[in-house]
Amino acid sequence: MSTTDTQFLDDFAEMSTFGATPGGGVDRQAGTAADHATRRWFGEWLERHGFQETVDEAGNQFGTIELVPGAPYVLVGSHLDSQPLAGRYDGAYGVLAAAHACARVAEQLRGTAEAPAYNLAVVNWFNEEGSRFAPSMMGSSVFTGKLPLAAALATTDAGGTDVSRALAAGHRTPDGNAPRLADVSHYAEIHIEQGRTLEEGGTEVGIVHGTWAASKYRVTVDGAQSHTGATRMEDRRDALYGAALVITAARELTAEFEPGMLHTSVSEMNVLPNSPVTVARQVLMNLDLRSPDEEVLARAVELLEKRMIDVGEISRTDITLDLTHSWGLLGYQPDGVRLARESAQHLGFSHAEVMTVAGHDSTNLKDVVPTVMLFVPSVEGISHNEAEYTRDDDALRGVRLLTDVTRRLVRGDLREEESS
Amino acid sequence: MSTTDTQFLDDFAEMSTFGATPGGGVDRQAGTAADHATRRWFGEWLERHGFQETVDEAGNQFGTIELVPGAPYVLVGSHLDSQPLAGRYDGAYGVLAAAHACARVAEQLRGTAEAPAYNLAVVNWFNEEGSRFAPSMMGSSVFTGKLPLAAALATTDAGGTDVSRALAAGHRTPDGNAPRLADVSHYAEIHIEQGRTLEEGGTEVGIVHGTWAASKYRVTVDGAQSHTGATRMEDRRDALYGAALVITAARELTAEFEPGMLHTSVSEMNVLPNSPVTVARQVLMNLDLRSPDEEVLARAVELLEKRMIDVGEISRTDITLDLTHSWGLLGYQPDGVRLARESAQHLGFSHAEVMTVAGHDSTNLKDVVPTVMLFVPSVEGISHNEAEYTRDDDALRGVRLLTDVTRRLVRGDLREEESS
Repeated sequence: MSTTDTQFLDDFAEMSTFGATPGGGVDRQAGTAADHATRRWFGEWLERHGFQETVDEAGNQFGTIELVPGAPYVLVGSHLDSQPLAGRYDGAYGVLAAAHACARVAEQLRGTAEAPAYNLAVVNWFNEEGSRFAPSMMGSSVFTGKLPLAAALATTDAGGTDVSRALAAGHRTPDGNAPRLADVSHYAEIHIEQGRTLEEGGTEVGIVHGTWAASKYRVTVDGAQSHTGATRMEDRRDALYGAALVITAARELTAEFEPGMLHTSVSEMNVLPNSPVTVARQVLMNLDLRSPDEEVLARAVELLEKRMIDVGEISRTDITLDLTHSWGLLGYQPDGVRLARESAQHLGFSHAEVMTVAGHDSTNLKDVVPTVMLFVPSVEGISHNEAEYTRDDDALRGVRLLTDVTRRLVRGDLREEESS
Repeated sequence: MSTTDTQFLDDFAEMSTFGATPGGGVDRQAGTAADHATRRWFGEWLERHGFQETVDEAGNQFGTIELVPGAPYVLVGSHLDSQPLAGRYDGAYGVLAAAHACARVAEQLRGTAEAPAYNLAVVNWFNEEGSRFAPSMMGSSVFTGKLPLAAALATTDAGGTDVSRALAAGHRTPDGNAPRLADVSHYAEIHIEQGRTLEEGGTEVGIVHGTWAASKYRVTVDGAQSHTGATRMEDRRDALYGAALVITAARELTAEFEPGMLHTSVSEMNVLPNSPVTVARQVLMNLDLRSPDEEVLARAVELLEKRMIDVGEISRTDITLDLTHSWGLLGYQPDGVRLARESAQHLGFSHAEVMTVAGHDSTNLKDVVPTVMLFVPSVEGISHNEAEYTRDDDALRGVRLLTDVTRRLVRGDLREEESS
């Protein structure tokens, strides 16, 4: 193993001690003490490796290396925050890989006569996960102008603390020198797949060409509060029973389509009044539908809406579906996919073009700048779980691929293709 | 309407202002500021009407009137605490009815030569509802020796406050003079039915002869945390999906029996980690089954346990049912039922013998002293809901019935029947 490989694995192990959980994972939700400890450590790492650290008003943490005074940045990164009781790789792997890639490219450039076209910047996007502060991808949404800064800062967690206050507990105050969207020429990100496609195909690296279509709903089930014992079954308007029928209906929907064509989930759920002897009056929950085929998604939504009418009648509850977020099939720029393919071929890595089911910060960035999104395999596709794992070989191949992609972006390969 | 009737309704209206909710109900969970305000008001009421107020270590609030120095007490009462966003009648009606009944009996005795056999005591049992501090019927369980005092005092709410601290915020410290179980000869309680039997039969008062059998479980559904989007449907071990199947199975079970023979409920529910983009790893919830027929209950439990095996397989989760509380059909003393029937006949109130589905403090008391339990009709059976309602006529008839029952108990009618 090369020195740089060993150094990456050592750094990754050290970083994984922040917010470490007994089950081998991490728990560092956005803006918590564990997140701030990781950010401080990462800031020190950046400074030690010749980057200048800055933080913007939305809490995004940058490390910049100036190669061409006044030129835009090739921005490379991901996120250091995690879900509760999560794995070590999701996001954090991509940030450290970006930092190592940029440091290696800067080092390579110092040894050659090759003239860079752009500057280098690493980024740790604030609150990609959205588990403590909704919505997810908060930092990259503010950066790309999709979410107003004031709305992000005013978002509160379940305990009433807002983002503004959570950020103030960090090691750095916002800095006017932090990169802005206008300063960015290209974006690159590497992430664990969180799925099994690469592993099952024995493929070493994935090049993301698109995102599954998705429709996300806030579901409200309104019933009537009553006594769990004394109320006759036919008199009940049990919101929890209504919610259970929604959950099973959403799951059964997936059997109406070919395997792998529809993913449905009900996740965060709040029951009122959630008392042991009281039938629930209201349940609120999140419902997601995702598909690699827009027609399948449209048909699934149609079937779901029909089924909700039955569910409301069976449970004597009122069910409301509010669409909170939706997107169609979204492609990454074909030029970026081609550049990544050339990199993989150059390095001799087996590769495949894949779609991402999960959202990433690159989902935001690709809408505003040419973006390259890369995957490394996840063992058994396990993610948002302490058992999340990517083999060292795969992780190291990913850093090498991201380094080569970054080098090509910095020397202007994509600029030339664009103008060709 | 008589002066005493008007006085009862006025007192009830005044009492209902404590913890009043915009929807016409009350919210005064045990040991909260609203509960303490009601207790203080009630203590002042007792003192104004010739009772001596005392509070025991478990927070039970008493008002005593000595008629026969050294004799045991006929104890009459219910509870002033409520569920969250609950009705005005549940418990509180019974405490005020008891206070008025005892005051009237004391007044009647002053005007006659009739020699009482016992003393009079009113009680407001602490924490009957169990919504803030589990278990329910806490105060009467400590009083009857079913729950150790230390265990009750150490119970904490969701915010970590224990009963001991919640009680210390009250208007009175525990008093060595408060009645003990050994000081009690009989117990009487009146409560709203929380069901529709009386209303549908056009019956004015109910005399409770038994309690439905019940089995209460703590259900644990163990799955595996994963990503809501990226995880393939067939790889999921979604604890929330498992929980939804348990909820629907419990409901469907009621259709296997004649209407009214089985009530099932899933109520308090906690989802872990309850994050928007994460499949739940664990769900905890309460499951109750209740029946007026022990064989139906046994058969229902058997069917449920079988069904849980399927549910575990379908959802790829591990489902554990822990029996937390269970009781068979429990009868109130037939002598007490007879005494109440004589009272109702004497007053010319139409009456019926009914069972209670809900538990009451009298459920505890009847196991240790002869107990009379009375019901007044509930409009549409609505309870644990702000819309809970009992008509004034019905409420006033109940106070008259409870007064007559108390008078008979105090003069020793049940003692004579017992020795006959």
